[in-house]
Amino acid sequence: MLVSSSSSAVLRRQLFLIRCLGGGVGQSYKKIRRVNCSSMVAMEADAEHVIRKITPLLDPTRHKGQAGKVAVIGGCREYTGAPYFAAISALKIGADLSHVFCTKDAAAVIKSYSPELIVHPVLEESYNIRDDEKESVSAKVLAEVVKWMERFDCLVVGPGLGRDPFLLDCVSNILRHARQSNVPMVIDGDGLFLVTNNLDLVSGYSLAVLTPNVNEYKRLIEKVLNCEVDNDDASLQLLSLARSIGGVTILRKGKSDLISDGEIVKSVSMFGSPRRCGGQGDILSGSVAVFSSWARQHVSSTKESADCNSQNPMVLGSVAGSALVRNAASLAFANNKRATLTTDIIECLGASLESISPAES
Amino acid sequence: MLVSSSSSAVLRRQLFLIRCLGGGVGQSYKKIRRVNCSSMVAMEADAEHVIRKITPLLDPTRHKGQAGKVAVIGGCREYTGAPYFAAISALKIGADLSHVFCTKDAAAVIKSYSPELIVHPVLEESYNIRDDEKESVSAKVLAEVVKWMERFDCLVVGPGLGRDPFLLDCVSNILRHARQSNVPMVIDGDGLFLVTNNLDLVSGYSLAVLTPNVNEYKRLIEKVLNCEVDNDDASLQLLSLARSIGGVTILRKGKSDLISDGEIVKSVSMFGSPRRCGGQGDILSGSVAVFSSWARQHVSSTKESADCNSQNPMVLGSVAGSALVRNAASLAFANNKRATLTTDIIECLGASLESISPAES
Repeated sequence: MLVSSSSSAVLRRQLFLIRCLGGGVGQSYKKIRRVNCSSMVAMEADAEHVIRKITPLLDPTRHKGQAGKVAVIGGCREYTGAPYFAAISALKIGADLSHVFCTKDAAAVIKSYSPELIVHPVLEESYNIRDDEKESVSAKVLAEVVKWMERFDCLVVGPGLGRDPFLLDCVSNILRHARQSNVPMVIDGDGLFLVTNNLDLVSGYSLAVLTPNVNEYKRLIEKVLNCEVDNDDASLQLLSLARSIGGVTILRKGKSDLISDGEIVKSVSMFGSPRRCGGQGDILSGSVAVFSSWARQHVSSTKESADCNSQNPMVLGSVAGSALVRNAASLAFANNKRATLTTDIIECLGASLESISPAES
Repeated sequence: MLVSSSSSAVLRRQLFLIRCLGGGVGQSYKKIRRVNCSSMVAMEADAEHVIRKITPLLDPTRHKGQAGKVAVIGGCREYTGAPYFAAISALKIGADLSHVFCTKDAAAVIKSYSPELIVHPVLEESYNIRDDEKESVSAKVLAEVVKWMERFDCLVVGPGLGRDPFLLDCVSNILRHARQSNVPMVIDGDGLFLVTNNLDLVSGYSLAVLTPNVNEYKRLIEKVLNCEVDNDDASLQLLSLARSIGGVTILRKGKSDLISDGEIVKSVSMFGSPRRCGGQGDILSGSVAVFSSWARQHVSSTKESADCNSQNPMVLGSVAGSALVRNAASLAFANNKRATLTTDIIECLGASLESISPAES
C-alpha cells in the first residue's frame, strides 16, 4: 500500500475494523469514525515514476492503434467543448485514435474544432424524437456504438453529455454493454450525475474510474454513504466510498487529488495552476483514459514482484493523469498567467510528458 | 468624489443646483447650463490602482466558478462575432465560465470559434416562428435562460443581438428577470437600442452599466434629456443622464472614456489604439462584466473607510475595463499596426493584466 509505514499501520487497523464491523460499508465508515479517532493520511504517490513506468516505448514496429484507442461519449446541443477537450487530450498524450460519440447537433461543431478526431453523430435528445420512436431510436443508438465497442481501450463517459433523460437512458445501455465487454471507463461530469443515480451501472466494476469534483463528490457521498463530506478524514472516507461502490477507482479532484480503489489511497499534490477555468476536468478524464490503457498493457505484460505499490491499472492511470495535467497546467500558467485557458493547458500536455518520460531515452 | 479639489467645488455647486432646481433632471441640466457657465472636468481615474484593488488573488483553494461566471445574451442570424468577442474576453481576463445565449443559427458558428465557451441555442427570431407560436416560444426562451440565471455574476446584453422585434421582446423579459434576481448587467450595442426605447428596463437599477458609443449616446441623450449632446460640458451632462436614469452607471466611449453613476464622474484617457476596427466595444463589455463582478466581491468583502473614491462596483468595474482594454489595444497596435484586429487585442488582454496586476506578487 502506498502509505508511509506509520500511517500504513493505522490504515491496516482501520481496514481491519471496516471489514470486521457489521452492517453496510457506509455504516462501517461511521462506526470506524466513532471508534477510531486517528486520522488516516494518504501517501503522496510517486507519480512521475508511475508515468515513466506505464508510458509505452515508441517502438517503430508498432502499428496504428497499439498506443491506445479512446472514445468519448458526450456532446449535445448545449455542450461541445468538453468532449473535444477530453478527446484531443488523449491524442496529445499519445493515443493513436480518439473518437467522439455525440448528438447530430454537436457533431459538426466538434468536427470543426479539429480534423484529428473521429466524430460519430449518433446520440439523440428527447426534443428531436417522438415518443413512439424512442424504443427504436434507443436500439439504433446502442447498435451504432456497439459495433465499435471492442476496438476501444477505454471510454470516457460524460464530458458535455447534458442531462436529457432519453439520452441518459441510451448512455446507460452503452455503459452496460461496455461493462459486459470489459471495456474500461472513466466517468466524469454528467456521466457522474447518471451513475450517482444508478449506482448499479458501475458498482463492482473494477475497470471504472469516477472523477468527481467537489459538488459531484458531495452528491456521491450523500447517496452512497448517506452522510456529509468529512474533510478531516478525507482519505478514510474516500476509501470507504470506493469500497462501497464495489472497488471502482475514485479520483477526488481538489487542492490535492485523492485516489482510491477501496484498497489503497494515494494523493497527488504537486502544484498545478490556480486558474479554475471550465474544461480542466475534461483534460483529466481524457488523460486518465490513456494512462489507464497503458497501465493495463504494462501490468498484463510484466510480472513485477508484488511490491508495496498498487498494481491496479485504473489507480496507476489516475495517478499518472492527475500528475500530468497538473504539470501541464503549471507550464501553461507560467506562460499565460490569468489568461490561461483549457486549450493552453492542452498545448502543454506534450511538453509535460516529454519532461517526465522522454520519447527517446 | 474623483474630481480635483478645484473642480470638486464646482461640481458640488452644480450638484446642489441640480438638486435645487425644479422640474425633471433633464430640465435641471438645461437650467444649470444656463445659470452656470463654468465647466466641470472629470478627474482621471487611477485605473491601474482600481484594477490592482479589485482583481482577486489566485488562491489554490478556490474552485471553479469563484473567479466569475458571465453570460452574454446576443448572437443572431446576422451577427456571431460580437458575442464571441465579449464572451472570450471575459475568460481571457480571468473569469472561470463564459456562456452565450443566442439563436440556433448563431450557435453552431459561435461554438466553432472556441471550445472554451458554453453556447445555448435558445433565442428565436420572427422569421423562424409563426404568430400563433409567439407566446409559447417566448415563455420557453425565458425559461431556458432563467434556469441558469442565478448562477451568473453578470450578464452582457446586446453584442450581436440584432433588432428583431420578437427577439428583443424576449430579451426584455430576460432583463426583467435578471433585475428581479439582482444579477448585474452590462448593456451594449443592440441592447442599448432596446433599453433606450424602454428605459423602465434599467431605470433605477444600480447594477446596470450602459456602454454607449457616440451614436448610442446621442440617442440616449435625446431620449432622456431631450436635448443635443453637449461636448463642452460632457461630464455634467453625463452625470445628469446617469442620474436621470436612476443611478445606472454609464460608460461613454470616446477619445477619453467618461464614466458616471449620477454621483461621480471619472475619465479614463490613457491612449489605446488609433485603429477603430469593429468589435472593440464587445471586448469592453465582456471586460466590464468581469471587473464589475470582482469589484462587487471586493466591496462586499472589505470595509474600507469611505475615502474620496467611489465604492460603486459598477463604476470600479467600468474604470478597470476601460483601462485594461485601452492598454491591450495599445500593445496590439504596437505589434500589428494597421493590421490590428479585435482578436489581436483579445490576445493582449492577459499580458496587459499581468503588467498591471501580476498573478503572482
